[in-house]
Amino acid sequence: MKIGIIGAGNMGSGLGKFWAQKGHQLMFSYSRNAAKLQRVAEAIGSNATVGTPAEAVQFADVVLLSVPYSAIADALKAAGSLYGKILFSCVNALLPDMSGMAVGTTTSAAEEIAKLAPGARVVEAFSLFAEVLDSPSQRFDDQIATTLYTGDDEAAKQGVASLLREIDVEVVDAGGLKNSRFVEPAVMLLIQLAYVQNMGQVGFKLLKR
Amino acid sequence: MKIGIIGAGNMGSGLGKFWAQKGHQLMFSYSRNAAKLQRVAEAIGSNATVGTPAEAVQFADVVLLSVPYSAIADALKAAGSLYGKILFSCVNALLPDMSGMAVGTTTSAAEEIAKLAPGARVVEAFSLFAEVLDSPSQRFDDQIATTLYTGDDEAAKQGVASLLREIDVEVVDAGGLKNSRFVEPAVMLLIQLAYVQNMGQVGFKLLKR
Repeated sequence: MKIGIIGAGNMGSGLGKFWAQKGHQLMFSYSRNAAKLQRVAEAIGSNATVGTPAEAVQFADVVLLSVPYSAIADALKAAGSLYGKILFSCVNALLPDMSGMAVGTTTSAAEEIAKLAPGARVVEAFSLFAEVLDSPSQRFDDQIATTLYTGDDEAAKQGVASLLREIDVEVVDAGGLKNSRFVEPAVMLLIQLAYVQNMGQVGFKLLKR
Repeated sequence: MKIGIIGAGNMGSGLGKFWAQKGHQLMFSYSRNAAKLQRVAEAIGSNATVGTPAEAVQFADVVLLSVPYSAIADALKAAGSLYGKILFSCVNALLPDMSGMAVGTTTSAAEEIAKLAPGARVVEAFSLFAEVLDSPSQRFDDQIATTLYTGDDEAAKQGVASLLREIDVEVVDAGGLKNSRFVEPAVMLLIQLAYVQNMGQVGFKLLKR
C-alpha cells in the first residue's frame, strides 16, 4: 500500500519502519524540522520519501496520523480534505505532562464514591468477570489474569491487595485513585469485547519487559 | 479479616466465596430482596451472615461496595459514616444498557479527529510503545501483545488491520469508533504504569476462554 504519514515522531517512524520492510511505500510529512523528516525517510531507505501533508494525503491509500493531540487541528488543516481516505489515527489525548487527558475523561466512579463517603479509605479493583470468578478455575488456559487496584491510602491498598491475592490472579498497583479514570474505561472495554463483540469470557494479562 | 459486603449481586457473592473459603468472615447487606441476601449467605456457609449496610460497616475491617453505579448514593447513605474504613469499590460507571459510562468518559481523540476530518474513514489503533517497536523483537518473553483497533467503516478497518499485522502483534477488532472512549484511557493506563509506576516497557495480552 501507499501510506502517507503525518507526524514523524517515534510512532510514525516506528510504524513506518515495519511497513517499509514489508514493501509498502511511505511518504513522511509534518515536522517542525524539515531536516528531521528527511533523516527519518533516509534511515528507512528507498521505500520512503518526504512531502507536505497535502501531498502525503494525495499519495496515500492509508493516511497515518501520528501527531501530539495538541497538533491535530493544525495537522488536519495542512492535510486538506480527507474525504473517502482511510485515516489511521494513533493519537491519544494525553496532556503533555501525562497528568491526565485533554478530552474524554473527567472523573471516575471511584472518585465520585470517595466524595460520597467522607474519610473512607477508598481502593478500587475489579478482579475478574463474575462468570470467571464463578467457575472451577480463574485461569485462561494456563495464563493468570492481571487485576489492577488504585487508591490513595497505602495501608488500605495493601489490605485490598491481600484480599485480591486470595483469587488466582496477578495483582498490580495501578497508582492513585485518579487512575481509576483510566482503569474503569479499560474494564468497560473488556465488557464491550465480551458482550458486544461476543468474545465470551475475557480478561487481560499485563506484559512487562 | 472481617469483610462487610454492600450489594450481593454476582460480584459481591463471587468475591465473597473466595474470601470465605480462605477463612475470612463476611456480612452481606443491601439487596432489594431480603430472601436473596439470606440465600447468598447460606450458600457460602458458616463464615457468612447478613445485616444492614450500617451493621456491615460496623462489623468490617474492609467494606466491599459492589452495587450498580446508579445505587451508590443510596447504598452509601444506608451505610452511614465510613470514616477511617477501608472501602473496596468494584463499582464501574456503566450505563445500565452498557452503551456508555455515566461519568468520566464523554468523547475521545478519535471522535474529535473524525469531526475535524469530514468524510475521512477513521480507524484508531495504538500498536505498541515506540520503544517496543524500535527493538529487535516486539514480544514480551514469548508472549505476543494485543493491539486493538476501532472504527465505523469495515473496509477501512480491514485495511488498517492488515497494516497492523505487519508487526508481530495479535490484532483485535474492538468495535466502533465510539469505543475509543475506552481504548484511549486503557492506553493511558499503560503509559501510567510504564512511566509513573516505573514498570518499564509494558503491553497487554487479551485473554479469552
